[in-house]
Amino acid sequence: MIDPQLQSKALRRLSIIKGQVNGLEKMIREQKYCVDVLTQISAIHEALRGVGREVVENHLRTCVTDGLRKGDAEKHYKELMDIVYRLSK
Amino acid sequence: MIDPQLQSKALRRLSIIKGQVNGLEKMIREQKYCVDVLTQISAIHEALRGVGREVVENHLRTCVTDGLRKGDAEKHYKELMDIVYRLSK
Amino acid sequence: MIDPQLQSKALRRLSIIKGQVNGLEKMIREQKYCVDVLTQISAIHEALRGVGREVVENHLRTCVTDGLRKGDAEKHYKELMDIVYRLSK
Amino acid sequence: MIDPQLQSKALRRLSIIKGQVNGLEKMIREQKYCVDVLTQISAIHEALRGVGREVVENHLRTCVTDGLRKGDAEKHYKELMDIVYRLSK
Repeated sequence: MIDPQLQSKALRRLSIIKGQVNGLEKMIREQKYCVDVLTQISAIHEALRGVGREVVENHLRTCVTDGLRKGDAEKHYKELMDIVYRLSK
Repeated sequence: MIDPQLQSKALRRLSIIKGQVNGLEKMIREQKYCVDVLTQISAIHEALRGVGREVVENHLRTCVTDGLRKGDAEKHYKELMDIVYRLSK
Repeated sequence: MIDPQLQSKALRRLSIIKGQVNGLEKMIREQKYCVDVLTQISAIHEALRGVGREVVENHLRTCVTDGLRKGDAEKHYKELMDIVYRLSK
Repeated sequence: MIDPQLQSKALRRLSIIKGQVNGLEKMIREQKYCVDVLTQISAIHEALRGVGREVVENHLRTCVTDGLRKGDAEKHYKELMDIVYRLSK
């Protein structure tokens, strides 16, 4: 469950990401130098990872903690391995 | 220089990415399960990497080839190392 | 705490990795083609990740589960974020 | 072709890596704390990447440059994409 504080922070980051994607579109329309385009793509990846990090930490503190204390631990082990080796790349 | 064919392909991908970012925003507003949100973020990363791959290949075939044949090789070695170890992550 | 079953599996993997590192050394001594050397390096990374994955899963099932149930949750949140975003790369 | 200077540097790094792998083996035998084991694995990955980086730069300056100037450019584009998106991970 995404707590309200994380929610507003994540939404603010997403509006920045939308601006970055529009900026990337403009660079491609204007046929900017490839390495500058790749730098913009890399910045969007980093901003997205910022959102991901906060969602992961929120997940650890809420769902995983409840799950290991009283719920279905196996499900959470499986999901955590997926987060570590796929979803956080 | 981004050739026209790559340009239109990349712009189509970007419109899909914009839709995915809007979808992510909706999931966060609706406080969806964290792992589903992380899966959406991972899908956006993958779509962005698709754009990046095409820009990198275009760069190899145009700027790098011209640069190594008659231009400033040192500049291209440096940029290529940056692409391999930073911009393609 | 590394359970005995994981321990023997990890030690078997490590003896394979030692062989791969010796193989890499031989390729460099014999000045093999760079891309073949890089392929060998990539194989060693993959084998090492195999060991890492098992240690991470073992950690989740033992230390993290005990820690979140009755121990110092904050310490484990911090360590898990370090695993996700640094130690598993 | 791996030039002699890179060769000796890479071989020195490999002897350090062998020591690190032996250290990792010892930690697993002695059932050290999982996060410490993962930190050691991460250090070996970093040391391996150091070797990889030098081989990639050497490859750019020798094989790729010769290849794009007078050889089979298509083969090198394909290999470079493999380096960027697989072998450098």
